[in-house]
Order: sequence, then structure tokens, then C-alpha cells
Amino acid sequence: MRMAAPAPGQKIKVGVLGATGSVGQRFMQLLNGHPWFDVVALGASPRSAGKTYEDAVNWKQSVPIPPAMAPLVVSECKPDAPVFKDVKIVFSGLDANFAGEVEEAFAKADVAVFSNAKNHRYDSDVPILIPPVNLDHLDIIPAQRKARGYDKGFIITNANCSTTAMAIGIKPLAAKFGIETIMVTTMQAISGAGYPGLSGMDVLDNVVPYIGGEEVKMETESRKILGTVQNSVFVDADVNVAAMCNRVNVLDGHLECLSIKLANKATAEEVIDCIKTYPSITKDLGLPSAPDHDVVYNPSHDRPQPRMDRMVGDGYTVTVGRVRDCNVFDIRMVVFGHNTIVGAAGGSLLNAELCVVRDLIN
Amino acid sequence: MRMAAPAPGQKIKVGVLGATGSVGQRFMQLLNGHPWFDVVALGASPRSAGKTYEDAVNWKQSVPIPPAMAPLVVSECKPDAPVFKDVKIVFSGLDANFAGEVEEAFAKADVAVFSNAKNHRYDSDVPILIPPVNLDHLDIIPAQRKARGYDKGFIITNANCSTTAMAIGIKPLAAKFGIETIMVTTMQAISGAGYPGLSGMDVLDNVVPYIGGEEVKMETESRKILGTVQNSVFVDADVNVAAMCNRVNVLDGHLECLSIKLANKATAEEVIDCIKTYPSITKDLGLPSAPDHDVVYNPSHDRPQPRMDRMVGDGYTVTVGRVRDCNVFDIRMVVFGHNTIVGAAGGSLLNAELCVVRDLIN
Amino acid sequence: MRMAAPAPGQKIKVGVLGATGSVGQRFMQLLNGHPWFDVVALGASPRSAGKTYEDAVNWKQSVPIPPAMAPLVVSECKPDAPVFKDVKIVFSGLDANFAGEVEEAFAKADVAVFSNAKNHRYDSDVPILIPPVNLDHLDIIPAQRKARGYDKGFIITNANCSTTAMAIGIKPLAAKFGIETIMVTTMQAISGAGYPGLSGMDVLDNVVPYIGGEEVKMETESRKILGTVQNSVFVDADVNVAAMCNRVNVLDGHLECLSIKLANKATAEEVIDCIKTYPSITKDLGLPSAPDHDVVYNPSHDRPQPRMDRMVGDGYTVTVGRVRDCNVFDIRMVVFGHNTIVGAAGGSLLNAELCVVRDLIN
Amino acid sequence: MRMAAPAPGQKIKVGVLGATGSVGQRFMQLLNGHPWFDVVALGASPRSAGKTYEDAVNWKQSVPIPPAMAPLVVSECKPDAPVFKDVKIVFSGLDANFAGEVEEAFAKADVAVFSNAKNHRYDSDVPILIPPVNLDHLDIIPAQRKARGYDKGFIITNANCSTTAMAIGIKPLAAKFGIETIMVTTMQAISGAGYPGLSGMDVLDNVVPYIGGEEVKMETESRKILGTVQNSVFVDADVNVAAMCNRVNVLDGHLECLSIKLANKATAEEVIDCIKTYPSITKDLGLPSAPDHDVVYNPSHDRPQPRMDRMVGDGYTVTVGRVRDCNVFDIRMVVFGHNTIVGAAGGSLLNAELCVVRDLIN
Repeated sequence: MRMAAPAPGQKIKVGVLGATGSVGQRFMQLLNGHPWFDVVALGASPRSAGKTYEDAVNWKQSVPIPPAMAPLVVSECKPDAPVFKDVKIVFSGLDANFAGEVEEAFAKADVAVFSNAKNHRYDSDVPILIPPVNLDHLDIIPAQRKARGYDKGFIITNANCSTTAMAIGIKPLAAKFGIETIMVTTMQAISGAGYPGLSGMDVLDNVVPYIGGEEVKMETESRKILGTVQNSVFVDADVNVAAMCNRVNVLDGHLECLSIKLANKATAEEVIDCIKTYPSITKDLGLPSAPDHDVVYNPSHDRPQPRMDRMVGDGYTVTVGRVRDCNVFDIRMVVFGHNTIVGAAGGSLLNAELCVVRDLIN
Repeated sequence: MRMAAPAPGQKIKVGVLGATGSVGQRFMQLLNGHPWFDVVALGASPRSAGKTYEDAVNWKQSVPIPPAMAPLVVSECKPDAPVFKDVKIVFSGLDANFAGEVEEAFAKADVAVFSNAKNHRYDSDVPILIPPVNLDHLDIIPAQRKARGYDKGFIITNANCSTTAMAIGIKPLAAKFGIETIMVTTMQAISGAGYPGLSGMDVLDNVVPYIGGEEVKMETESRKILGTVQNSVFVDADVNVAAMCNRVNVLDGHLECLSIKLANKATAEEVIDCIKTYPSITKDLGLPSAPDHDVVYNPSHDRPQPRMDRMVGDGYTVTVGRVRDCNVFDIRMVVFGHNTIVGAAGGSLLNAELCVVRDLIN
Repeated sequence: MRMAAPAPGQKIKVGVLGATGSVGQRFMQLLNGHPWFDVVALGASPRSAGKTYEDAVNWKQSVPIPPAMAPLVVSECKPDAPVFKDVKIVFSGLDANFAGEVEEAFAKADVAVFSNAKNHRYDSDVPILIPPVNLDHLDIIPAQRKARGYDKGFIITNANCSTTAMAIGIKPLAAKFGIETIMVTTMQAISGAGYPGLSGMDVLDNVVPYIGGEEVKMETESRKILGTVQNSVFVDADVNVAAMCNRVNVLDGHLECLSIKLANKATAEEVIDCIKTYPSITKDLGLPSAPDHDVVYNPSHDRPQPRMDRMVGDGYTVTVGRVRDCNVFDIRMVVFGHNTIVGAAGGSLLNAELCVVRDLIN
Repeated sequence: MRMAAPAPGQKIKVGVLGATGSVGQRFMQLLNGHPWFDVVALGASPRSAGKTYEDAVNWKQSVPIPPAMAPLVVSECKPDAPVFKDVKIVFSGLDANFAGEVEEAFAKADVAVFSNAKNHRYDSDVPILIPPVNLDHLDIIPAQRKARGYDKGFIITNANCSTTAMAIGIKPLAAKFGIETIMVTTMQAISGAGYPGLSGMDVLDNVVPYIGGEEVKMETESRKILGTVQNSVFVDADVNVAAMCNRVNVLDGHLECLSIKLANKATAEEVIDCIKTYPSITKDLGLPSAPDHDVVYNPSHDRPQPRMDRMVGDGYTVTVGRVRDCNVFDIRMVVFGHNTIVGAAGGSLLNAELCVVRDLIN
């Protein structure tokens, strides 16, 4: 079903914006050895510009910096910088303080922008794209190009990390039974706050029951993501989400406890069955980073757990567990996803791969 | 308002059952230097009997074993053991495998039993007592004595640790506005599982989204605790509770995220005000272990937190924070309490002190 | 043996410099309710000046901010600020970037300065004072006053936190057998780096085998501390110390593994006996913050441990354990002390109390 | 230089003893997809025998159980069990309570045994083999076979995990300058204690300064490993090692601080250079699991660190850092290695691969 994979020896040149940050580092790791994309340009702050990546970055990943990436020279995040000359795609891990204008400048300059920042997520012509959930939201791109005067460029965002895991985990239920209400409490990993992020004194032997702006993001984004595109306009889903967000002493992976009111009642067994039979959308599309399954059900009584389930599907698979009845709503369940892979850099990578097969990169 | 405090030099002799276990150790710590109670008898398994407490216990508290307690000799948990001769109160930290019959034997032998085990919690004539919440449940004791043929003895249980924190935190709302529904997700400390409890490999960099039996306990016990005693019979409160329980990498203190549907609507400000003005019931009763406030409201945007709030009121105060509106129910808030102090040994101690001032210890 | 305790109702007025920082917060906690000292003045950065302490501080201690301290108004760290008018003692938790000159200004203004900063530690006329180790170093004060033109003021520093624990732990051996060489590897708590200090991402599931400047401090300071004052001049001890310092995922308390070459050979049993019989110097001096023992030996095979031994002697006692022979030097042992109590604020407090009984505060 | 790799389609049949334990699980992970070895037999306790691996194991690795391994049926650890019929190699992760006799039985039955247990490590005819350190110790095998009456079978052990990392890290120095004395303090991961191993309450916010038997193992094994085989007899190296072992709150990877007295003095720069130029022995031998380098030098001032360096060389590379002069001995440095890969299962796997290329598997 794959349509437009680059021919061997014809990799697409890509850049990474915010390459030294937390999300940027994860992009570098995931793009290392990618079959379709070739990283040729790194953008970061003026302070890093001119240095090799190895010298500019304070590498904090659990595996060493890819040797092929280490000697790349960092430049500023400007589309007219020479290194961006033949770049057709940029992955943006930029901070929200800078992302807005920089991303627009690249889109204007005929570059497809895949962003992790919140700046454009709520724009009326920018999709929050999660391929296993709402790939039809790509339909908005022509309208976006027209409205903004972009020729070949465009902007696609991914959702906030905690929203992404939830959206993938509930999509099978939403598709089959409809969802009216979600009450969700999250236990989120510290890598979600970037580096240095939280002080060690705040995470050791502790939980912080507050993450700035996170609850509103989950409540707002999920309505757009689960919604539809009608006549080039986003129509929000009629789902009522209330979130309570917490930071726990975990490195990677957001765990979320959900209670869900379905539009059409279903038993726990029916819900489990609908998750297990949900198609592997990204795999079926032939995306090279796709996991075997976008979402899986783990039948163990005490799973998912961050340490043991974060690398399911190499971090691209969302795991659901503990599906059971609820005496308040209909169904309780636990959803878990890797916040910096499927919930951030990996999500953007799937989005870019999807745009390749949909022939949107030109 | 204190009624029946022991005269100086006339301390009440008490015993601790299960003295070497986790809850038992906390009893020893809290009873050290107590103004009314004198620990003269320690009960534990036959394996420990005959040893000094110091030799029998694998002490795991964060402060050293009290010097006065170290040389006490442990005996078996039998009311006719010589050390229990003049004991009028026993605090039970026994394991549920043994607690049922042993506690009954002591009550039969004219001893007031304050239990942390679940065995008798759901008996129709045994209160789950939390003084700031339901001290009128003491009214059941005459009926209990009559039904079971106890003369001076009786059995009083405290609630499961996660239920206790929730019950104290929501009591002001229940009293003022009424509560119809609670959705609660807990993040519970590992000390709640006793020692050794969870493996280090399961708590490091991890969350376990399952605690055996805990969700049912919270859902069941809260109905009884918030209920009433009518004509010597417990009448459950008509409150619908759904719980999702998790174990996090925290030593002491359970954090709970609640969404609440009130019987009579109230704003977040009204809820905060009702918590702040809730009376200090145990303090007003003159209980020596009582904190200044049974429940407090912390106005910081990111509190309560386990490491910084567990010792509020020396571990006897429940802290509420982040009270705010909810777009699904009426109010969202965070409740936090020390699981082995107010939620276990300390709760039992308050119960015993209450029985002293109510002249039930004879 | 106490000589000059303030009469009741005649408490000495004291100030805290750097009151909002990590060490400053610990000072506030330890000075709360102190029998001799009354905190009347708080100094901090211009940014905090004018605010109440409660508003200025980002309180990070595990117990709540003392209610009596909360409303105190913070001023700048200048001896001529009105609040410092009758202050005779200041405790300095100032950062090394500011401590040097500020502390001198206070000493010049007739204030006794007890500092935790490194700035003056290596001055030839300033003692690094640890009462159980080298209280005779107080003899340098007259020379210091003379050299610097101080009248009633002076400066006394305490040692770096890791040095303090080691010095107290080995003093019994140094006194009885003499010490030639120490190889020490530390595992230090994150609170030693202040707040925010290390990123949560650097401490979770990790050890950082480097603490800037720490190894040199331990090697240098221990020679001065174990040395003598001869004719108003410090003479370093002839002890060769090599240190390897690590940061581990522990909140409070530094654990140190030592291998020691003694001047006069001794068996492990003799070393244990010499620790157990070492006098309780600060207690015998009648210092109100003194623990029962400055140093204790814990005979368990797996102690000391940070979580369980940090509050021995309320954090003022250093614990030694695992004393055993060494096949390279003579003795191996583990030393442990609370880094922010005995190793920082508490150490300064003992120093000030010592100066009171020695009649140096006028 | 590879001599005897199995032809394609002619993989060697291997078994794993103790397959459900911690080391056994790591074997399963590392053997998954191995180019030379095909896992056909799993041995475990009678309790597990007859179950599929998936049902028998309490899988605790950070990546999911390999799908190809899940349905294998576990049998008892007996060489005459049918599944072991054509097995030429067994990897033993057996507990020391069982390993001794079982491993002998397999060797007697013509199977090459690669053991992680301590039982045979100190036998006079069994090597403690670490290919980058002492591959010439293989020369003992003919003598072992003769002495024990083994025909094609033999027993090869690997070292204790903390010894392995140290031995690989110091080998370049030992080879070039000679080593007389080592003082080593370890900070070891909790996975080294197996599952469940340490209680979560003992590792959270804590260090345990004791690991049973570990210090003696490091001191004893290193002498044998660094020694030679002369006339079919092991001759210990004349190196004096003193170890102090600690358990820290880290999942995988042992960090070790060493101070070393060299036979021939060298500067830190010379030591660094000798590490950097040490040959890649296992890679040069063509072993399929070999990393690019058996040992590397990390020049950062604060490395190696467990979280970031444990997967260097996929866990097969030992990292050395912080090489600097020492004022007591000659050189201080930090050594780090993955305890369950290079220090356990991975080490055995390299040993087996070495025996293949040396034509010892027949």
C-alpha cells in the first residue's frame, strides 16, 4: 500500500530545528539510519551555531550520540541558511518561545514543517496529526496553503505528549462505541519537562500534582483530534474531557488512568476485543517507523508499567491495560505511551513518513 | 473539653500486637513518651516470642528505635500471656491472616482492640472509626458488646490508608454540600505494602497501576464511613465512588486526585472556604496526639506533595490542594495524607484517645 | 560544665544571611525555638528584601516553615540595616559569590560570623571549626581580631559537608592511634548541591561520579582540621588524604567508604572500642543542640544507611559502621553524617553555642 | 581472523539453564536472533517444567519477551531430558544452590557449560574467562577434561559482575605498566541482586553499604583473572586488591572508583593513551556479539554514568573515565560496566563465541 517511498540513493534531505534540546536529541536518535530521510541541517540557538553537534549538545539520552550525527555543524534556524538549501522537511523541537515565527518562515520557504510546539496547534488551518487516529485531517493542507500563501510548504503539529497516548489508546473505543466523557488522571515522566526540567529534589521520593497548562491541553486537543474535517474546516468532537495531571519519578513514559462514558454501552470484554482488533494503520501504510501495532492490549493484571512497556514497538506502540467496568461511568482502563517517541519526536516522524506516502513532499 | 485523661502517674497499660511489622513499628514510634499510654506488652509471632524487641524487629523507620522500647520482651499474641495481665488497650498491626481471631480473643478478655486489619471492618457491629469524620459511630459499641458477649472489651477498626485520607479530605464538603459521586485516582506510597513489600526493581523508574483489593476497599469503606448509625445499625451513605489505585516511587504518603459531584452545587471558593473553616475536631476533644487541624487547605498551585506535606501536623493532618472547577463533575481537588500515621497507626491511636475521653476504657 | 548560657528572657539576638537558600532554610528550622538564640534579622538578595520570609522563600524542607519565622521581613545583607542593630551573631548560608565581603563587613561591625561558605576557610587566621574534633582551634580568634582590626566580631567557618562527617568519624582513631593516610570514596546526597541543584534526569537511575571542587576540599580541609594551633598559627596535620566524590540519588546524608593507614597499628576491635568510648564533647560542654553522642558505632553488618541513620542524634550525630581490617591499609570503615545538619547549618549552630559558653560573644 | 563460524543454516543448538531467573532472562534476550546459536532447550526448576516459557517466567526486562522464545517449553535441568539431545552448549544462570552439580552433569554429558555461578570459579582447573582480559586461560581446558574425565564437555565460568567491569577497565594498565595495588569502592545496581532482590524500601532515598560476599569475590577473582596459566596450572597475579561494595538506587550498571598503584609509574595522560589504544580483542576475533571496543575512555569530566553509559557497545563495552593522578597511589579512575550484559549473560555469550572460533565446541 506504500505509495511514494524515495528510491534507493534518493533520500529526502531533512533538517532538525532545536536539535540540541530534549525533543531534538530524540529526533537525532530516531533519524539515525532512517531509510528515507537524510539529516543534513541542524538548527539551534545562535549560541550553538557554528559548533559541531557533538560540541553544542548536552546529550542526555540513554544511548550514545550517533557517530554519524556528531560532526554535523549547527546553524541558526533560518530557512535561507546555506545548509537548508535542499531541505524539504524540517522537524521542529523548538521551544514555544521561538517556534511560532520560525516554523512559519520555513513553511513559507517551501519546507514541510513537522512541529512539536504548541504554537500552531490551535490554528484553524493546522492539523494536530496522529496517523492512527485522524489521518484524514491531512485534508486540511490545501486550505492551509491557500490561506497562508504557502506553495510547497505547510505546517503539521503533533499533540501534546499526554494527549497523544490517550488519543491512540481510546481511538478504537471512539470508533466503535463513541465516547461522551473522559475523566483522566495522568502520571507523567520527567523527560516531558525537558532538561534540566525538574530539580532532583522535587522528584526524589515525591509526586508533583501539577503540570503547567497540561490539563487544558488534554481537554482542548482531544476534541480537535477526535473531530472531523468538513468542507476544509475542523469540527470538534463532542467529547467532554476532564484531566488531572501529575509528575512522577519516572524517566520516560506517561501512564494515564481513564474512566470513560461511552455513547453506546459496551462490556469490558467488548472493549478489549475492539482494541485487539483495531487495525495497524501506520504499518499498513508502509511507514518505515511504524510499529507492528499502533495500540496493543496487555492482559496482565498490573500492566502497563513505564519501565517495562515504554519500548513496546520501539516506543511507537501505545499499551492499554486493566480494562474493567466502572461503577460511575462505563469503563475504566490504563493507557500508556512513550512521551518522547510516539508522544513527540516519533510522532512527528510518522507524520512526515505519512506525508511522503501521500505525496505531499515536493 | 477533655473528659477523662488519666491522672499523672496513672498511665493506662497498653499492648501492641504485630509489634515487629510495619504498622507495629510505627505504633512503637508514636507511643514512645505518650502522656496517657504506657507500652508494657508486645505481641508477635511465635518466632519472635522470648526475644527482646530490639532483637526481634527488623527496624525500618527513618528514626532510630526508641531506647525505652528496645529491651521489652516480645510474647505471643495471647490475652492470657502474663504481660497482657493489666493491659486495657491493644493496638493491632496484625496481618489479616491472623488478626480476625486474635482480636476477638482480646476483646473477649476485656481489652479494647484498635485494629488496622481489614478482617472486622465490614462486620455489621464494628465501626470504621475516623474521629474527624464519624466519631458518632462510637454509638455502635453497646450493640457490639451485647451481640458478641463482650463485657469491657470491644473492637474498633480504622479504614484502609487510602480511604482514610480521602474521607478526612472530603468530610467538610460532605457535611456542607453533600457528595453524590467521587472519581478518585491514587498515587500510593510503597510503605503501604509493608516490608519487604515491592521489589526495588518494580519501583525504580516505574509506576505499578494495580494494588490488590484497594479499589474495592475505597469504594466500600467510604460508604460506611460517611454513613450514619441509626438504631444501632449502620446505614451506608448514598455516595458512588470509583477508584483507580497506583503504586508510585514514594516512601510515605498517599496522594489522591478527586473529581466530585456535589449534591448542592458550590464554587471552588466555597469549597476552599468550607475546608478552611472545618473545625479541629480531635484538637477540640483534647486528644494528646491531635494535630492543630485535622484537615488543611494548601493554597500553592503545586501542592500537596508527599515529601513536603507528609509531616504536616506530625503526620496527623490531611492536606487538600488544587481545589478547582471540573468540566465533568463539580470540583477537582488533590488530597494527601500520611499512610502509616493518620492512615494507620496514628489513626488507631486517635481512636484509642477518643475512647479514653469518652470513658469507654474501663 | 556550661559556662555562660544566656539568662532566661535574655536571649541573644541573631541573624541569618542567605536565609532563603538551602542552608539558610535549614538554619531557620534549627533555630526555631532555640533556647539561647532569637532570630530577629534575615538577610537575602535585594530581590527578596522587603518581602516576608514566607513570600520570599521557596521552602523545600520536609517539614513546614516554622510559623514564627514566616512573617519576618527580609532585608539586604548589610550590617547597617536597622534589623541588624542589636544582632551579635549571624549565621551565613551565603553563596560563595557573595559570602567573602559580606561576612567581613559583619565581623568588622562587631558581629560574630558563623559561615558555611568556602571563602574564608583557607585564610591563615580563620578556623574551620568542628567542636568534637578541634575546639582548641578557637585559640586563633585573638590573632584573627588583631590581624583584621576586628573588635568584638570574628569569622568562624565550618568545613565542607563531606569533610565534616569524615573528620568526626575518624577523630577517635586520629586521637588514639594517629592517621597517616586516608583513601575515601563518597556517595553524597543531592541536597548538598542546593536547590534546584541537579536535574531530576541526572539523578534518577543514575550516579554522577563528579562533584566540582569537592575532592580538593576534602583533601585540604582535613589537614587543617586535624592540625594544631601553635603560637597563633595553624600547623597542618601530616595526613595524606585522597578522595573520590560521587553524587547519588539520596536526599540527605553523605555516606563515605574509608580505608585508613594508622600510625600505630590497631585491630578492628580496638578501633570499634575507641569509637564507642570517645567522649561526647558537645554534650559535656552543655551545648543545647548537642546530641547524646557526637559519633556512634552501629554494629549492624549493613549500616549506616542514609534513610535510617540521617536523623540519629537529630542529625547531629555521625555514625560509623562496618569497621574491619583492610588488606591494603589497616582499617576499612563506613562513615555517615547528615550533610545539611551536622555538615552545614547544625555545625555552625554548635560553633555559635560553643562561642557562647567560651564567652566569646560580647 | 574468525576461524570456525557455523555455516549458514547450521546453527549450533544451545540451551539455557535457569532460564526464568534474572540472568536467564538476559540470556534469552541476547540469544534472540543470534547468528550462530539456536535456543532449543530451556531448563528451570521442576515447578516450571512443562510450562511454556511465557507462562513460567516473571519477565522483568525493559523490552518485551522475544516472540520466538515465548512458546518454548521449559524442562528440568537434566542432560538426559529429550530437549537437550543435540545441545552442544548450555548457558547457566542457575542459582549457586543448584549450579554446582547440574553444571558438572552437563559437562560430563559432552556439553560445553558457560556458567554465571560462583560454584566452580575457584576450582583449580576451571577458568574465569573474560576474553578481552585473559583468553589464554582457555589453555586449561585440556587439563580440565583430563582431570574430570570429560570428553567433549567442559566448564567455563565468568567472573562476578563487579570483578568483570574492573578487570576489563584495568587490563590495559596491567598489560602496559603492571598493577601492584587496587583500592576500589563500588556503587552497584540492584539488578545484580536478582528479582525480587532488595526491597523498594531499602533502595529508595538510600544506599546499602554492604553486599554479601562481594568484596572477597573481587579481591580473590581478580588475582586469578589477571594471573597466568603455566604448565596447565593457574598462577595468581601478585596484585593486592581491597574492595568496599555498595548497593545504590540504579537499575543496571556497576560504577567503580579505583585508586591504583602501578608497578611502573605512568602519568594520567599515559594511562588514558594506553586505554585508548588497547586493541578490540573480541571484535578482532570476529565474535558476533563483540562491541566495537571492549573498553573505551570517556573524556567528559563527569562520566561514566550508569543511565547514559550502560548501553555503550550494546552493554558489552566497559567505560573508563576521570583518569587523574592520585596523591596516595598513582592513578585514580572510574570504571563502569553493565552488570547483566558484559558482567553476566553477555560475558558468557562472548566466552561461548570464543570457544566456537577456537574450535572447542564439538
